Amino acid sequence: MISVEEARSRILSALEPTPAETIPLACGWGRVLARPIVARLTQPPADVSAMDGYAVRAAEATAGALLAVTGSAPAGHPFAGAVGPGEAVRIFTGALVPPGADAILLQEDAEAAEGRVRVTETVRPGRWIRRQGLDFTEGEALLPAGKRLTARDIGLAAAANHAWLAVHRAPRIGILATGDEIALPGDPIPAGGIVSSNAHALASLVRAAGGDPLVLPIAPDDSQAIAEAARAARACDLLVTTGGASVGDHDLVQSALGPQGFALDFWKIAMRPGKPLIWGRLGATPVLGLPGNPVSALVCSVQFLVPAIARLSGLPGGPPRTLQARAGAALPENDRRFDHLRASLDAAAPGLPVATPFPLQDSSMLKVLARAEALILRAPHAPALAAGETIEVIPLGDLGI
Amino acid sequence: MISVEEARSRILSALEPTPAETIPLACGWGRVLARPIVARLTQPPADVSAMDGYAVRAAEATAGALLAVTGSAPAGHPFAGAVGPGEAVRIFTGALVPPGADAILLQEDAEAAEGRVRVTETVRPGRWIRRQGLDFTEGEALLPAGKRLTARDIGLAAAANHAWLAVHRAPRIGILATGDEIALPGDPIPAGGIVSSNAHALASLVRAAGGDPLVLPIAPDDSQAIAEAARAARACDLLVTTGGASVGDHDLVQSALGPQGFALDFWKIAMRPGKPLIWGRLGATPVLGLPGNPVSALVCSVQFLVPAIARLSGLPGGPPRTLQARAGAALPENDRRFDHLRASLDAAAPGLPVATPFPLQDSSMLKVLARAEALILRAPHAPALAAGETIEVIPLGDLGI
Repeated sequence: MISVEEARSRILSALEPTPAETIPLACGWGRVLARPIVARLTQPPADVSAMDGYAVRAAEATAGALLAVTGSAPAGHPFAGAVGPGEAVRIFTGALVPPGADAILLQEDAEAAEGRVRVTETVRPGRWIRRQGLDFTEGEALLPAGKRLTARDIGLAAAANHAWLAVHRAPRIGILATGDEIALPGDPIPAGGIVSSNAHALASLVRAAGGDPLVLPIAPDDSQAIAEAARAARACDLLVTTGGASVGDHDLVQSALGPQGFALDFWKIAMRPGKPLIWGRLGATPVLGLPGNPVSALVCSVQFLVPAIARLSGLPGGPPRTLQARAGAALPENDRRFDHLRASLDAAAPGLPVATPFPLQDSSMLKVLARAEALILRAPHAPALAAGETIEVIPLGDLGI
Repeated sequence: MISVEEARSRILSALEPTPAETIPLACGWGRVLARPIVARLTQPPADVSAMDGYAVRAAEATAGALLAVTGSAPAGHPFAGAVGPGEAVRIFTGALVPPGADAILLQEDAEAAEGRVRVTETVRPGRWIRRQGLDFTEGEALLPAGKRLTARDIGLAAAANHAWLAVHRAPRIGILATGDEIALPGDPIPAGGIVSSNAHALASLVRAAGGDPLVLPIAPDDSQAIAEAARAARACDLLVTTGGASVGDHDLVQSALGPQGFALDFWKIAMRPGKPLIWGRLGATPVLGLPGNPVSALVCSVQFLVPAIARLSGLPGGPPRTLQARAGAALPENDRRFDHLRASLDAAAPGLPVATPFPLQDSSMLKVLARAEALILRAPHAPALAAGETIEVIPLGDLGI
C-alpha cells in the first residue's frame, strides 16, 4: 500500500495538459488560459474624467471664480478644442480631458448659469483625472497562461480587446461503471441488484472540476464487455472505471484490460474509504480505477480525480484545498490508513468553523455523504484528540461537488 | 440613499422563483430542485455483505471450524438456497446474504480448500452485514425542494431511482450595456472610446451564479435604442443594464425606459464603489440598473445580482457568504458609505486568513479587481482598526466570479 500523497504525485506526474483550442471570449468562463492575455491597448487610452463636472485650469478654478463654458465632452464624444484661460468644458465620467485642462471641477462644487459656471469649492491640480494607463498599458501581461478564468478575468480580457482566447481543451474523461448488479435509474433492476449511482455522480464531479464527461454504457462483469468499452474510451484524456465488485474490484478490470495493453502502476492506497484504486495506462490513455462503492469512489475522486482533471486542464493540480476547523467531537486515534470522516461544518460562531463527524461512517451510506459539508482528514496514526482541537478539513461545497 | 441591506431586501422581496421544468438526471448538476427527491426503493434492498468472504452461521464459525462451501453469491447473482448447519456460501461485496446466514467470515480470516473453508478467526453475529435500509428506505425524503444539487446529490438521486428531476428553470438574465463610447472586443473603437468589458464579465457572473445570460447588442446613448433593447428583454426573468454614463448613468436609462412603462423603486445606495443603482420594474420584468464603471458593476453584482439570481433559481438568496479574516494593514475610519476594499487573501499561516487591501482602490481599475481574492467589508462609520484585528470579507473565488 502506498500513501495518499505518493499516489497523487504519481498520478499527476503521469499527466500533461491538453493542447490549446481557440474559443470566443464569451465562452471563456472557468476555462484555463493556454496563452497569456497581453493588453492590446492602454486603459484609460488618455487622461479621462473620473466624475461628472467641468474640465478646468486648476490655477483659475478657485472658490468664487466665474468661467466661460465653451463646450461639452460626453464619454465617446471628445471636445474638439482646448480649454483656454478663463474657460471650462462640461465633462462626463469617462470622457477625455481636453487639452489645456488639468483638473475636474465636480458638478456639485459648481453653479451653472447661462453659458458660465461659478466655482464654489477650490479645485486642486490633477483632481478627478484618471491618468492614461492607470489600469494597464499596451503590451502589459495581464493574465498568465495556466490561470482559470473568473468573471472578472473575462472583463479584463475584454477591456484589453481580446475577442478570442487560447485555452486548454476541457479534458475528456471517460466514465465506465461495471457490474452485473447495477442498472441505470428507471431501468429494470436485476434480482439482488441496485441502481447505479456512480456514473452520474462522477460525471457531475467531472463537470464541477472543468472536465468533459463521456459516460459509457454500463459493462457487465465480463472481460469482453469491459475490453469493448475500454476501446471506446481510447479517445479520452483519462478513463475512469468504477466497480466490478462481484469478482473483486480490480482483478476483473485488470484482467479485462490486460490483453488490451494495460500497464499497471499501483493499485492499493493506505486510505479509508477507498483502499483499492487502480492507476495505470491503456496504450496512451491513463486509467484510474475507482472502487465500486459510491462513497469510496467519491472520496477517491476528491483526492485523485479532481487534481488529475486540474492537471489535464493546465492547472498545477495539487492536493485539495483544506480549511482549518475545530473538532466538534473527540476523535479516536487513527490506524495506518489516511481517514476521511464525513462531517457537518458550522461557521456560525466566531473563529474557526466547527467540523463534527457524523456518528455513522459506513462507506455505503450515500445519504450521509450527500449531507456532509466537509471531510475531516485524519493522517495515518494521528493521535486521539479532544473536542475543540484544531483539525484539517476538505470543504466539499467549495469544490462544487 | 438607502443601505445595502435594505436594497437587497427590497430586491429579493420583489422576486419569485422560476417555475419548474423536467430535465434528465444527467443534466442536474448545479440546478435547484423544484420538488423533493423521495426514495423510490430501499437501499440496500435487503441485507447484503459489506466485504468479500463467506456467509456463515456465526454460532458455528469459531476459530478452527471447518464448513462446507455449498455455493457462491456474487453481487447481482443471489444464491438460490439457504445456508444450513455446517455450511458456508462464498459471497462478494454487495451480494444478498442468503437465508440462514447471520454473519460474514472475511476471506482473510478463512482458508479455502476443496469445497470447504476453515475459519481462522471467530466471527461475531451480524458482522460485515449491511442491513436492509441502512442508507435509506422507500418513501423517505432524501433531498428537499430548494436544494442546489451537488455531484453527491446526483448520486443519491440516482441511487433512489430517479432518471428525471423537476428543477427550477435557470433564470434568464438579459444584459444590456449602454454607451456611445463602448465597442465590443475586436470591433472598431470610437474616438475617445473604450472596449466594453461589462457585458461579458456580467454574463460570466450570471453563469457562475446558475443563471442563463442573454447578452443584448450594445445600445448607444439614445432613448430609442435603449427602449428597443428593453423590449427585446421582456421575456427575461430580470433585465440588467450597465452604463449610459455620458449623460449621467441613470437619467438616460430611466428616461428611456419611462415611456415603456418603467416603474422605479429606488436608485441610490450608500455604498462604494457603486452608489448609483437602479431597481424597478418594466412591466412584469424586474430591472437592475448597474453603474457603467466595471468595478462598481461587479461589486454591485456580488451584493445584489448574485442574490437575485439565487432567489429566482429557488434558493433563499441572502447576503453573500462572508469569512472572518485578520486585517493585513491598518484601516482608516469609514464614512457613511458601506465600502468594499479589493484585497489579497493569504491562508498560509495558522488561524484566520489575512486580508490585505491593495494600495490603489480606484474603481476604474479592472486589473486590481481581477487580482483581488476578497472584498474587505467596511460598514458605514466603521471605526479605524489596527493590522491584525478581525474583519469580514467576501471571498470572491468561492463565488466562482
